[in-house]
Amino acid sequence: MTTLRHFGEDALIARLAGLVPLDPQPAAGPGDDCAVIDPGPQHDTLQLLKADALVARVHFLPDAPARAVGWKAAARVVSDFAAMGGHPERFLVTVALPADTEVAWAEDLYRGIGDCLKTFGAVLAGGETSRVPPGSAPVISIAASGSVQRHHLVLRSTAKPGHTLLVTGTLGGSHHGKHLNFTPRIKQTDWLVANFKPAAMMDVSDGLAKDLPRLAAACGCGHVLDEAGLPLTPGCSITQALGDGEDYEILLAMEPERVAGLLVAWSMVFPELPLTVIGCLVEPGCGGSLTGGWDHFAAVE
Amino acid sequence: MTTLRHFGEDALIARLAGLVPLDPQPAAGPGDDCAVIDPGPQHDTLQLLKADALVARVHFLPDAPARAVGWKAAARVVSDFAAMGGHPERFLVTVALPADTEVAWAEDLYRGIGDCLKTFGAVLAGGETSRVPPGSAPVISIAASGSVQRHHLVLRSTAKPGHTLLVTGTLGGSHHGKHLNFTPRIKQTDWLVANFKPAAMMDVSDGLAKDLPRLAAACGCGHVLDEAGLPLTPGCSITQALGDGEDYEILLAMEPERVAGLLVAWSMVFPELPLTVIGCLVEPGCGGSLTGGWDHFAAVE
Repeated sequence: MTTLRHFGEDALIARLAGLVPLDPQPAAGPGDDCAVIDPGPQHDTLQLLKADALVARVHFLPDAPARAVGWKAAARVVSDFAAMGGHPERFLVTVALPADTEVAWAEDLYRGIGDCLKTFGAVLAGGETSRVPPGSAPVISIAASGSVQRHHLVLRSTAKPGHTLLVTGTLGGSHHGKHLNFTPRIKQTDWLVANFKPAAMMDVSDGLAKDLPRLAAACGCGHVLDEAGLPLTPGCSITQALGDGEDYEILLAMEPERVAGLLVAWSMVFPELPLTVIGCLVEPGCGGSLTGGWDHFAAVE
Repeated sequence: MTTLRHFGEDALIARLAGLVPLDPQPAAGPGDDCAVIDPGPQHDTLQLLKADALVARVHFLPDAPARAVGWKAAARVVSDFAAMGGHPERFLVTVALPADTEVAWAEDLYRGIGDCLKTFGAVLAGGETSRVPPGSAPVISIAASGSVQRHHLVLRSTAKPGHTLLVTGTLGGSHHGKHLNFTPRIKQTDWLVANFKPAAMMDVSDGLAKDLPRLAAACGCGHVLDEAGLPLTPGCSITQALGDGEDYEILLAMEPERVAGLLVAWSMVFPELPLTVIGCLVEPGCGGSLTGGWDHFAAVE
């Protein structure tokens, strides 16, 4: 019997997506941070759609503060909109909770979601509540619609061999609390798309070891990573920086001749947040490989 | 300690929704079948958004055929778009499954979702897969975006005292299999909004005993129900017709002077599907009351 555990997450998604009708002319490839809907060339604004889920005992511990869990559930989605150069606007929040959940816990969860929506100018448009059977893990599933200016859209698939790779912030150590209270980098992506539009962009949610190969593969490239130059969260090793996951930083690719100007301008606009060159894209079949990072179904239980 | 079990679902949703920012000028009241986004009076088309979830051991038995579960998960959402006079276009499918789920089960689930999307002309735009801890109930959470012509939009809140209440199909007995293979009434709602646009409309998903008071309350009305005249699924009692839930029929309100013409035309266009007058809306505070129907958190476990 073959179970989900035998598949990597990406292979599973590819297999399942082959069983349903897909957009015949998608404006973004499957697997990008958000789905992109192009209403036609007469429109300056494209629509973005995204769904994401948090599961107790998988994405957060049962004793995590509910308000922080709510923030995380919504902020993960904001991070995906940021990675496209766009903004979320309307959220649909589905919670599936055991009937013996304290009302105060559910209220704190929604307060946390509300904190995030207020911070990033979005609203709740709808949702669903359901119970799960006794003992089942609570699930918080969020979908959101939003938009991006056509000329600000950045895909993860549009960089080329020779482009420089950069990452915002520091990597690793997310489970020491950062995964519950991170700030999506939307202020930074707003600035980037207006001033130094990257050739490709994605958010680092499953660890650089998992996400960098995804970006390179989407671009049809190999990658070279300067592991010794990774911006490490204090106290973290390179292995942690590569594999912990849930960094919610932005990985971007840029034409090399624009990088020096970007770094100078960035340091003036965002002096508190590092932006670090970590490698480059190369011809397919060249470069290194990475293992590790977060995989939902392969994870040890 | 107050738990979710002590709240009705509607009361819980109202309480939670008060904790997050909402659309300051919603095009539909909270609690309608879909959220409605009005892009401005220069646009003929309004956007619809909907989220819905299925939980194993709550909405389907663990031994239910996965393909039927997938159909149900998607068809429930189609039914909500039908109830607004609109159509779904893009689906985001989130599945949270134990890692020891057979791949064949997940594939059949997606085949069922695909059956439904093909039938109703929609596509998969994205989604998410996650594991749940061992022993936790699988959760299938679906969000969809779609559209409705501005002059076809029907809310659940816009009928008035004196309007006649009608329901499509027959009620009751859903758990004898119909809940897994029902056909959303979108062909019928398409015809209705083009030919006999109702004053209000909603889909009956939690049982008429739960949903009729919701429609009446949204309209600021009371209701009178002709229980003896309910269209019963063969073998079902009035109690079952009121309380079983998951009928996925359409409850509509119409000006009484248009009802005779509607019934004649309907019987010619849809000879196989009953359309039955079941009562009327009355002034608030008048009329009857109903108890029963499906409530997620009050359900006995």
